Amino acid sequence: MEKKKNQMDLRNAPVGIFDSGVGGLTVAREVMRNMPQERIVYFGDTARVPYGSKSKETIIRYSRQIIRFLMTRGVKAIVVACNTASAFALEEIKKEIEIPILGVVQPGAKVACAATKNKKIGVIGTEGTVRSQIYTKFVQQWDPEIQVIGKACPLFVPLVEEGWLKDPVTDEVAQRYLSELKEKGIDTLVLGCTHYPLLRSTVRKVMGDEVTLVNPAYETALELRELLCANELDNRGESEQNGEKYQFFVSDAADKFKQFANSILPYDIETTKQIQIEEF
Amino acid sequence: MEKKKNQMDLRNAPVGIFDSGVGGLTVAREVMRNMPQERIVYFGDTARVPYGSKSKETIIRYSRQIIRFLMTRGVKAIVVACNTASAFALEEIKKEIEIPILGVVQPGAKVACAATKNKKIGVIGTEGTVRSQIYTKFVQQWDPEIQVIGKACPLFVPLVEEGWLKDPVTDEVAQRYLSELKEKGIDTLVLGCTHYPLLRSTVRKVMGDEVTLVNPAYETALELRELLCANELDNRGESEQNGEKYQFFVSDAADKFKQFANSILPYDIETTKQIQIEEF
Repeated sequence: MEKKKNQMDLRNAPVGIFDSGVGGLTVAREVMRNMPQERIVYFGDTARVPYGSKSKETIIRYSRQIIRFLMTRGVKAIVVACNTASAFALEEIKKEIEIPILGVVQPGAKVACAATKNKKIGVIGTEGTVRSQIYTKFVQQWDPEIQVIGKACPLFVPLVEEGWLKDPVTDEVAQRYLSELKEKGIDTLVLGCTHYPLLRSTVRKVMGDEVTLVNPAYETALELRELLCANELDNRGESEQNGEKYQFFVSDAADKFKQFANSILPYDIETTKQIQIEEF
Repeated sequence: MEKKKNQMDLRNAPVGIFDSGVGGLTVAREVMRNMPQERIVYFGDTARVPYGSKSKETIIRYSRQIIRFLMTRGVKAIVVACNTASAFALEEIKKEIEIPILGVVQPGAKVACAATKNKKIGVIGTEGTVRSQIYTKFVQQWDPEIQVIGKACPLFVPLVEEGWLKDPVTDEVAQRYLSELKEKGIDTLVLGCTHYPLLRSTVRKVMGDEVTLVNPAYETALELRELLCANELDNRGESEQNGEKYQFFVSDAADKFKQFANSILPYDIETTKQIQIEEF
């Protein structure tokens, strides 16, 4: 009886999702859509954003602090909703915690493998993600014959944050970054940074309709559901919900985060709390 | 005799210069040119760059840590070679330390006041610097009749870091950001971010020859010299120089910093050390 109650409490615990900033909200959005019963604690590291240009050691240190923070909020599982952190820190961190944890890279790589016909996949992401060659690693575990061509697009994140989503400047930057991938004849392109789905129509325009665009956020949400079910942790709505269903924390500039979040989430955030992440 | 020796040691101590990343090197460059006898300890906060989009509280916290670090290196004076940190943290920090400290904003504002004829000054900078209205404050202390028009240019820093210094994309972005300032008829424009002098020719092309461009780095170096002389701290080359004359520290990705530094400094950096700034 006691055990059953504990399990019910655990099922009712929130899922922790984190990113360097606002990009991971595209993952939170998919989790909200696909698992409307799950509670979420989101953390965006807005004081230290961006992660894409930083070193592996630094990203591991930052990720550890964030996971310690999420643990204090009683999360039952963690989604690393940032490609750079998934690439640099996930493997290391997995060894250190006991709850289920997943990143966005493996789910993204899996869909890309299923989608490609000519065995040529492109991956766009931050400098860190592309340099890590993590997508190549996962893809070639499934099929060593698939060729993966990476391209770092450092201006995409600032363009998204500037709000120039449909803009001639963004078109020109995309043209420059993507022409190489187009010439190499890829038939599948992974949007390997959680900000990039917001530039989907620009990327589509440059790449044309024949190239499949993969958004790892969608597949990550599905894998999260499987992972929770396998661990008997999925929320079945059997417990009463106390407190806010979705909680948002940032390390800086809570108001700005809230504005951005409200423009991309399917519901309006009421509060965002700022915490000192360095203390964790 | 003892006192004289101490003063000589002090004169031989290095000047501390810090920035959120590589931008402050444009200030270090001017100090090297103008005061070839001075030793320098430079710190670039590459793990937490950029500062421009972060809050005042966070910038003050970061600046305090950096100053504590510089103090451990025995600096005799400090230059805040970052407009955002000068705008948000300088006033606060000045109260807390005993050695001379100066930022880049006041020297920049002073030159702009001297340069303008029609009393219309433009200031371009990060979101934080522009929002703070710090240039307006200093300018109007000298002459309340001068109008200051600020414009945040958030894509300029990532464009510089991407190396697209002379590029049609950068031209188009500059056109967009600067057209408002041009229409308002300013005759003087402050490059209010230490990255921006690297975009000088692009800005010149858009603004035309009739607008005076002010680079606060140059004036800051001159003010530093005055400040050192006034405090009897200028290095007269009377002591023997031990160790490296110029030392560079960063909070992340030392190699990348070194490459960038070598492309803009008048001499080649040999070593850059990485430190954990959060521990200070």
